[in-house]
Amino acid sequence: MAVFTQVSDVALKAFLKAYDVGTVVSFKGIAEGAENTNYLLRTTKSTYILTLYEKRTRLSDLPYYLSIMEHLAGSGLPCPLPIKDKDGIALKQLSGRSACLISFLEGVSVAGINAEHCGAVGDMLAQMHLSMANFPAKLANAQSIQTWADLTEQITDQADALEAGLSDLIKDELVYLEANWPKNLPMGTIHADLFPDNVLFTGDKITGVIDFYFACTDFMAYDLAVCINAWAFDENHIFQPARAKRMFERYDILRQFTGDELSALPILCRGAALRFLLTRLYDWQNQIEGAMVEVKDPLDYAKRLKFHQTVRDAADYVF
Amino acid sequence: MAVFTQVSDVALKAFLKAYDVGTVVSFKGIAEGAENTNYLLRTTKSTYILTLYEKRTRLSDLPYYLSIMEHLAGSGLPCPLPIKDKDGIALKQLSGRSACLISFLEGVSVAGINAEHCGAVGDMLAQMHLSMANFPAKLANAQSIQTWADLTEQITDQADALEAGLSDLIKDELVYLEANWPKNLPMGTIHADLFPDNVLFTGDKITGVIDFYFACTDFMAYDLAVCINAWAFDENHIFQPARAKRMFERYDILRQFTGDELSALPILCRGAALRFLLTRLYDWQNQIEGAMVEVKDPLDYAKRLKFHQTVRDAADYVF
Repeated sequence: MAVFTQVSDVALKAFLKAYDVGTVVSFKGIAEGAENTNYLLRTTKSTYILTLYEKRTRLSDLPYYLSIMEHLAGSGLPCPLPIKDKDGIALKQLSGRSACLISFLEGVSVAGINAEHCGAVGDMLAQMHLSMANFPAKLANAQSIQTWADLTEQITDQADALEAGLSDLIKDELVYLEANWPKNLPMGTIHADLFPDNVLFTGDKITGVIDFYFACTDFMAYDLAVCINAWAFDENHIFQPARAKRMFERYDILRQFTGDELSALPILCRGAALRFLLTRLYDWQNQIEGAMVEVKDPLDYAKRLKFHQTVRDAADYVF
Repeated sequence: MAVFTQVSDVALKAFLKAYDVGTVVSFKGIAEGAENTNYLLRTTKSTYILTLYEKRTRLSDLPYYLSIMEHLAGSGLPCPLPIKDKDGIALKQLSGRSACLISFLEGVSVAGINAEHCGAVGDMLAQMHLSMANFPAKLANAQSIQTWADLTEQITDQADALEAGLSDLIKDELVYLEANWPKNLPMGTIHADLFPDNVLFTGDKITGVIDFYFACTDFMAYDLAVCINAWAFDENHIFQPARAKRMFERYDILRQFTGDELSALPILCRGAALRFLLTRLYDWQNQIEGAMVEVKDPLDYAKRLKFHQTVRDAADYVF
């Protein structure tokens, strides 16, 4: 949400000398992405995003994320393409940070989400999963179920201060999920954070999928569960079945859900709700003063979790 | 430096219906301007800045600022043009704020300032003063010498905590300036805040002058004194005579300084240094936690003031 690292015109000019991207027309810091610094750069040749990776991004995983973007953009999907310099290098250094010049994608994030948008997201998610089938690199999910017990221990002491009973809700849910989490669903490279902020639309058409910095190897059906949480609830956190149905249908046309995946969908939705409840609670309790980062309300995900707990089977989501 | 007010795609679409600017291609909050929210909007027709005026901007003065921009852009100067809607209205409401769509200007702010840049600034400043000669509206300078005694009273108690002797420096300077401030110099409409942040260059050519929200009616020579303070000192706050000389020469070619203005230049430079020292000290002492606004070091202007106090006459700046 902010420009953490300033890049002067002099530093920019020196940086761009290594590239074949024309000369600078304009250069503006943009309020995008919670964790990194992003500039919108227009040159005589094209428009780009220049990302400087701040402390919270694990530098050792950057080559993995960049190669996913390159793979997806290479498949013709509207994903940012890391731009290589004249020596063929995409991941560089600038102003004391790891940095990457990335292609710019048109479109805007939508706030007034409708079923059409959700259908487009389901379709795009399936396209991405299919495209990644022959992608060789693997990365464990750093926010997987294996990490939730640790997080729970760190945050439950103060959770009830936010809402009475929240601590028990979380602990009981974790016991249930650990006992019932599926084991043998189809794995793949997933986005794992495909929230409305990270999808750009032009009309009802997706023209950009961005922010691959949580991508990892995990159940593909879990990626859809994240999307159901992110897209199929309205601004009052009420489940909108028409949105989930449309998202699932469009996904399922391109990559058919197995019977096991379908049975597991309710628990995956519960897991995804708990994952965002936990990390939001952690961020809520560990706000850095003046950090210029918008902290999101954890209770949005407590409400979703409580809804998912009332679901009997996948039919409640998708039929 | 931040997006204080969020504008959703739905609100934006409704807002743009009143305009003849095409449809949205992209829309990004930008980290520009210390006090207002700015978005960079690209449509099928052109590129624009959308400004939402936050609390610190005096709403009653907005029509004055917008008419200055319109006047200067109408004279062919590279100034932002407020875009009117289909009813001919430029100042509108959006997301609970006064808002204005403004033409986008190419170029980047320069950090590696050289004498060529300063010459271009002098030339542009004179062009602006000449263009404003037939502009009828007047607005008193809200940061004029008449306001400095009040500010001094508010900040000197804590000034010495920042640097020993700072309080006396300010109080003594104020006594001197109040006794010696010129009275009958040529007045005009001035920018009053033409810092490097507010000038966009493409190479050595100015392609944008922005941020007219301190514009007012005051001595034209004072505007040059502000620019000397802002542009003619290096990053260690050491005066660079070649920069000031070039700036003055290019200004003087277009609008010749009178003898009185030339004699007054040293005291005007002292005044401009004190003005920014005072307002920066005030902002320093009144930082709002989490306000996401970069607070600038007041001592940069104490150093400038001390330099100006050593100057004998205008020749030290301009010959």
